[in-house]
Amino acid sequence: MTRYQHLATLLAQRIEQGLWKSGEKLPSVRQLSTEHGVSISTVQQAYQVLENLQLIIPQPRSGYFVAPRKAQPPVPAMSHPVQRPVDVTQWDEITTLLDNNQDKSIVALSSGSPDLSQPTLKPLWRELSRLVQHNLDTVLGYDGMAGKVELREQIARLMVDSGTQASADDIVITSGCQGALSAALLAVCQPGDIVAVESPSFYGTMQMLRGYGIKAIEIPTDSSLGISIEALELALEQWPIKGIILVPNCNNPLGFIMPDARKRAIVSLAQRHDIVIFEDDIYGELANDYPRPRTIKSFDIDGRVLLCSSFSKTLAPGLRVGWIVPGRYLNRVLHAKYAAMGTNVPATQLAVAAFIRDGHYTRHVRRMRRVYQQNMENWTCWVRQYFPDGICVTRPEGSFLLWVELPEQVDMVCVSRRLAKLKIQVAPGSLFSASGKYRNCLRINCAQPLTETNREALHQIGNVVYDALEEANALTPPKAPA
Amino acid sequence: MTRYQHLATLLAQRIEQGLWKSGEKLPSVRQLSTEHGVSISTVQQAYQVLENLQLIIPQPRSGYFVAPRKAQPPVPAMSHPVQRPVDVTQWDEITTLLDNNQDKSIVALSSGSPDLSQPTLKPLWRELSRLVQHNLDTVLGYDGMAGKVELREQIARLMVDSGTQASADDIVITSGCQGALSAALLAVCQPGDIVAVESPSFYGTMQMLRGYGIKAIEIPTDSSLGISIEALELALEQWPIKGIILVPNCNNPLGFIMPDARKRAIVSLAQRHDIVIFEDDIYGELANDYPRPRTIKSFDIDGRVLLCSSFSKTLAPGLRVGWIVPGRYLNRVLHAKYAAMGTNVPATQLAVAAFIRDGHYTRHVRRMRRVYQQNMENWTCWVRQYFPDGICVTRPEGSFLLWVELPEQVDMVCVSRRLAKLKIQVAPGSLFSASGKYRNCLRINCAQPLTETNREALHQIGNVVYDALEEANALTPPKAPA
Repeated sequence: MTRYQHLATLLAQRIEQGLWKSGEKLPSVRQLSTEHGVSISTVQQAYQVLENLQLIIPQPRSGYFVAPRKAQPPVPAMSHPVQRPVDVTQWDEITTLLDNNQDKSIVALSSGSPDLSQPTLKPLWRELSRLVQHNLDTVLGYDGMAGKVELREQIARLMVDSGTQASADDIVITSGCQGALSAALLAVCQPGDIVAVESPSFYGTMQMLRGYGIKAIEIPTDSSLGISIEALELALEQWPIKGIILVPNCNNPLGFIMPDARKRAIVSLAQRHDIVIFEDDIYGELANDYPRPRTIKSFDIDGRVLLCSSFSKTLAPGLRVGWIVPGRYLNRVLHAKYAAMGTNVPATQLAVAAFIRDGHYTRHVRRMRRVYQQNMENWTCWVRQYFPDGICVTRPEGSFLLWVELPEQVDMVCVSRRLAKLKIQVAPGSLFSASGKYRNCLRINCAQPLTETNREALHQIGNVVYDALEEANALTPPKAPA
Repeated sequence: MTRYQHLATLLAQRIEQGLWKSGEKLPSVRQLSTEHGVSISTVQQAYQVLENLQLIIPQPRSGYFVAPRKAQPPVPAMSHPVQRPVDVTQWDEITTLLDNNQDKSIVALSSGSPDLSQPTLKPLWRELSRLVQHNLDTVLGYDGMAGKVELREQIARLMVDSGTQASADDIVITSGCQGALSAALLAVCQPGDIVAVESPSFYGTMQMLRGYGIKAIEIPTDSSLGISIEALELALEQWPIKGIILVPNCNNPLGFIMPDARKRAIVSLAQRHDIVIFEDDIYGELANDYPRPRTIKSFDIDGRVLLCSSFSKTLAPGLRVGWIVPGRYLNRVLHAKYAAMGTNVPATQLAVAAFIRDGHYTRHVRRMRRVYQQNMENWTCWVRQYFPDGICVTRPEGSFLLWVELPEQVDMVCVSRRLAKLKIQVAPGSLFSASGKYRNCLRINCAQPLTETNREALHQIGNVVYDALEEANALTPPKAPA
């Protein structure tokens, strides 16, 4: 981030926090220049950014004033999905989405990619390059079934922070979190089985269910507290559910962290109904607050929680290094992994192991938590600015994903088609439902840096949404007064 | 290979080829030294090697003579497996096998690892190291669903040699050949389905069937011509078989190359019975003769052959780069791949693409074909030397795997347990059968260099086999004369 962007972010935060009230005069350019030890032009550029964001208003000959504040939008209400088992659809939409991620000319706000530009990642590539040059023997051959022990030991150490007790022998390395969840599902489920999911829920996981012929039942989920335990219990009484997939920490797409009491409650519910819990902790390390939240696995007493995670969000997806702590399903997970893909790439595993061992991992993750939190505030600010009134926006407790609920008339599937022509890609909410709900929602990847291109892209999304809303309202006859 | 080893190999070949007959006197040390331009001691060392192999006999004061020749052992006869669908077993034996591959103190003649020590591989690591240092953007991010187009283009080019017509768009990159076969099975089969396999058949593939709940039916297979088409046809009439897995080129474990007429015949049989063919071509590029044999896929006219392959045998397994040409199942294979493991590591894909593009691949594979052919001759020679009479040995037409059939009384499962105590690991034949046949067989990996350690290991295997045979014979009362 350049100096003026840094200053702009700082000032925006102060305004957000109410340090300067709406209509209040801001410090003069000269004052700020002295206070922050930066040049006059830096302050001017920073004020220009804030003006573009419509956070401040210039008054000729008297300086800058805080703009009248748009109210903070509310968070989305508890979801109300169709509560019966369904086959997941929309595979074609997903392929389009994934293929376009490769096109560099597209602004892809749809992806789940982390920010890969930070200098704290550098030692990882140095290590990888060193391995390839000096440790060929290990790098070339077949990996063992469970993956490199050096890495499993480091992961066991890291997991202590989340309250998870596991030794290297309890861990199996996989190809990303997708490989972990896949092995978990294959180890536990048969085609035709029913698995419960949060609603909305990550499309990748749901497509996996589809791939294995498993039916999904969507459970109402609160955007701050997580899945409704009452609704889940009802569903468990009504259907022969085999297990439940949960993203309890920095949920994708809602951003909540499930309170510990609820994590405990869900474990005892799983015990009572003898189901398994597939826990996806891929974003858990990116929680805003330190120490990081506990896993559901940490409350598990009889090995029924299969904890899945990876370094795809904390480090880089191109590593394809994930892991699973499969509890009582260890042997079946090993077999499932062997069946699905054989073994893993040794080089990236060893590089990550050294990166953690030498302390680089902790440093990098600490930095990314701060970066993403700041990004998220800025993106939220932009959304408020460019989107129509009547939206709901999540307040994520970590990671870098924002979920926006638009007025019901807006069809994001149509909007996303129009945006595709403008080379902007968004993830319409319907992808996050097995039954095609949430067409008026979208998920935004806020890991993307705060560049002018990204701001402009969001502005354009806002414009297309405004148009769609107007068209929809023109079609709908006004309601007769009651 | 050192100079004397090289000379020893050359002389051994000449003896094998009958250039010097049994009992004939060999050239003097001085003569050979002059002829080959090597030192006297080099020739003496080479003769020592041949003496150890019992290929030559020293006569005091008159020189070396060719030893009386053991007859070339016959090849194994057509196999006779149980011809009904069964569940694959022996997962525990496989995990032991795979785990021990990681222990460097064990001589692992059981593995399928290629020789990774050749200098022609070097440009690959240079490229990988370069990518990690200079092409981070691509290396870090998520790969596309089908894998890197640069690599798919190169694979399409290579496949022309096997008569296979495919463009980059017809190819999907996978995590090794295991990932390719896995996606293929998942795309076509359901649990409970029946798939036909050659007998014997690679244990990894059969464990995959087990992992997906698919039953295997083993079809009689000839060690020179491949699967019995008649037996397959009978099975197809009797059982609802969904598809057949074939390794037609440099078969694992039998080493045959299926004649083109049979490849054609099997395609028309598949059409008549409307089944699919899962073709595993992982060893196809390592055929002794150039140009390499055609794939079954090259005879496919309606997209029912799913061609699976990888660079694990030609380059290195640690790359985890394989591919599939799924014909009419393209979309379902993409979904299956996404479900099973998401996307692949971009770095190794790009390194392999550059390695092929710059001509290093052709050079390396050409060299490896020669190396493996020479190795195989030497290992066959050792086997003949150290194993009891009455064995059958395959005459592989490529790759680096030797299949040895011992007298029926020998139980290689017991032998392998005894060998494990001596830190020698072999793959007993029973792993290659779903129904536990071939307990008197073993597969030997001849990619292992011709070192003294390896020779000594094979000698020890022979000794334990002799012991086992003696014990078995002592237990069996001699047959009464007819």
